[in-house]
Amino acid sequence: MAATIRDVARASGVHVSTVSRSFSAPHLVNDTTRSRVMAAADALGYRPNRAARALTTGRTLNLGLVVADIANPFFPPLIKAAQAHARSGDYHVFVADADEDPRAEEELIRTLTKQVDGVVLCSPRLSNEVIVRLAADVPFVVVNREVDGLPSVLMDVARGARLAVAHLRALGHTRLAYLGGPSGSWTSRQARAAAGIPVIGPNQPTAQGGADAAEAVVAAGVTGVLAYNDLVALGLVEGLAALGVRVPEDVSVVGVDDILPGRLNRPKLTTVAMPTEAAGRTAVDLLLGAADGPVTLPTAFIVRESTGEAPR
Amino acid sequence: MAATIRDVARASGVHVSTVSRSFSAPHLVNDTTRSRVMAAADALGYRPNRAARALTTGRTLNLGLVVADIANPFFPPLIKAAQAHARSGDYHVFVADADEDPRAEEELIRTLTKQVDGVVLCSPRLSNEVIVRLAADVPFVVVNREVDGLPSVLMDVARGARLAVAHLRALGHTRLAYLGGPSGSWTSRQARAAAGIPVIGPNQPTAQGGADAAEAVVAAGVTGVLAYNDLVALGLVEGLAALGVRVPEDVSVVGVDDILPGRLNRPKLTTVAMPTEAAGRTAVDLLLGAADGPVTLPTAFIVRESTGEAPR
Repeated sequence: MAATIRDVARASGVHVSTVSRSFSAPHLVNDTTRSRVMAAADALGYRPNRAARALTTGRTLNLGLVVADIANPFFPPLIKAAQAHARSGDYHVFVADADEDPRAEEELIRTLTKQVDGVVLCSPRLSNEVIVRLAADVPFVVVNREVDGLPSVLMDVARGARLAVAHLRALGHTRLAYLGGPSGSWTSRQARAAAGIPVIGPNQPTAQGGADAAEAVVAAGVTGVLAYNDLVALGLVEGLAALGVRVPEDVSVVGVDDILPGRLNRPKLTTVAMPTEAAGRTAVDLLLGAADGPVTLPTAFIVRESTGEAPR
Repeated sequence: MAATIRDVARASGVHVSTVSRSFSAPHLVNDTTRSRVMAAADALGYRPNRAARALTTGRTLNLGLVVADIANPFFPPLIKAAQAHARSGDYHVFVADADEDPRAEEELIRTLTKQVDGVVLCSPRLSNEVIVRLAADVPFVVVNREVDGLPSVLMDVARGARLAVAHLRALGHTRLAYLGGPSGSWTSRQARAAAGIPVIGPNQPTAQGGADAAEAVVAAGVTGVLAYNDLVALGLVEGLAALGVRVPEDVSVVGVDDILPGRLNRPKLTTVAMPTEAAGRTAVDLLLGAADGPVTLPTAFIVRESTGEAPR
């Protein structure tokens, strides 16, 4: 098994972040420490990963983080965890909002890559081909997407979707639907495939998108819904209420993400909790060479108040 | 009256953004158009403001936007509006999250100013003295703070706070309290002064901060609360519920901001709506010289479900 950055840290008696910095920003590590780290790395045959090697120029000490929609409360915990983790390695994080627009996303990435040493791309809406082309200039880590040749951080939404469907069936629901997300979303494809239930959508991944889908849910006679994300689920609850349909008495709704508004709402949202903070930290570790990808993080299924027994 | 950028645009038959770019990023404007704009500006005696003059180097075509807490849903609409507006002038926006930490805020600003042509600083927690010192390097526009010598975008939270207190009094509430925000917050000071009611706080400007204040509200025998922001208000509703205190039957709660979770919540939040999108656009206009500051934008008072008649 190849030596990891942790082996080198242990062998040289320093913290993992010091090993990372010895490769990525050597001017920030004192010479004695750096020599010890390099000697240990040589002895163990350790080689930092592709992303970390490309970082060795230490050009700006800034990292870029591109998110699909900064207004989605899914992203801030990820951003904050990435930021805190990067800061402990003396990096700053600049955030760019793609606004659910693939063209804006591409443009922002092109601009950002000139200003930063590495990019974390979260829930991209671009195609893999475009992402690979853009990743030629600086190291990329992709969150919520598998892209050949790039380190990625994935969340096991498929398992969450299966648990959600099993939960709805156990409550007696037989007419189920998945409210799909944007067509460019990897998470939507994973959840849809794992859920194995009829799909309504694609939908805008926003509360408005969920509200807009309420009529289609009622028209389909569906009583159990798994939504693309919590925002869609919260919007759906609102849209159903406007049609006089109660949650969970008439329709049960499950979200994905576990965002704060879902925890404050009445009814509190049953949801597939995504490991956003761990994803933010892991993405930075991959970028700085403290870990190797791809990494798949576990999800959790949390039952709250928006699901109940099927109406008779 | 001094000629404005709009006068120059009209006189030279081009869009306002073209006039702005003629000064801020002349290489992006064709020579003929630029000559026409400059001739009109000379004839009218138009001089771009300080911020716009400093932008004339057009170094990066990037703007930086620093927010107090990216997890507060108050900021994303402001960020998105600023971004869309900047993009129409060929600028990109990088966002940095100060995480409610003045030290992190200062560090981020120092880093960001090396990478951008101008900075919009939103709801800073730093002192005015530090802000003025940081603003020496690139043009600054400050949102939600008055800083001598810097263009600012203010929101009339004082009027909103007065309307909120009048609303609570009209419902029969006599024991009122203001749940204050962080000590570095200009908005908190403005609202507190305008409300003229006893203060509980300072509180963390988060849902947790509101939940933590629930016991103090009950202990003070207060039945009408104006909270620093909607997050604090939403957290307070949660914290009160945990103590068996109902909103609005036992305690009426008013927020400030009008964030999405307050509109989705049960009870839906009565709030002082802040003009976040207009503030984002105006801040960019000030930075690019298309407007002069300071600008005070109006707020609106929106009655929803979290306020009701005082208990007898």
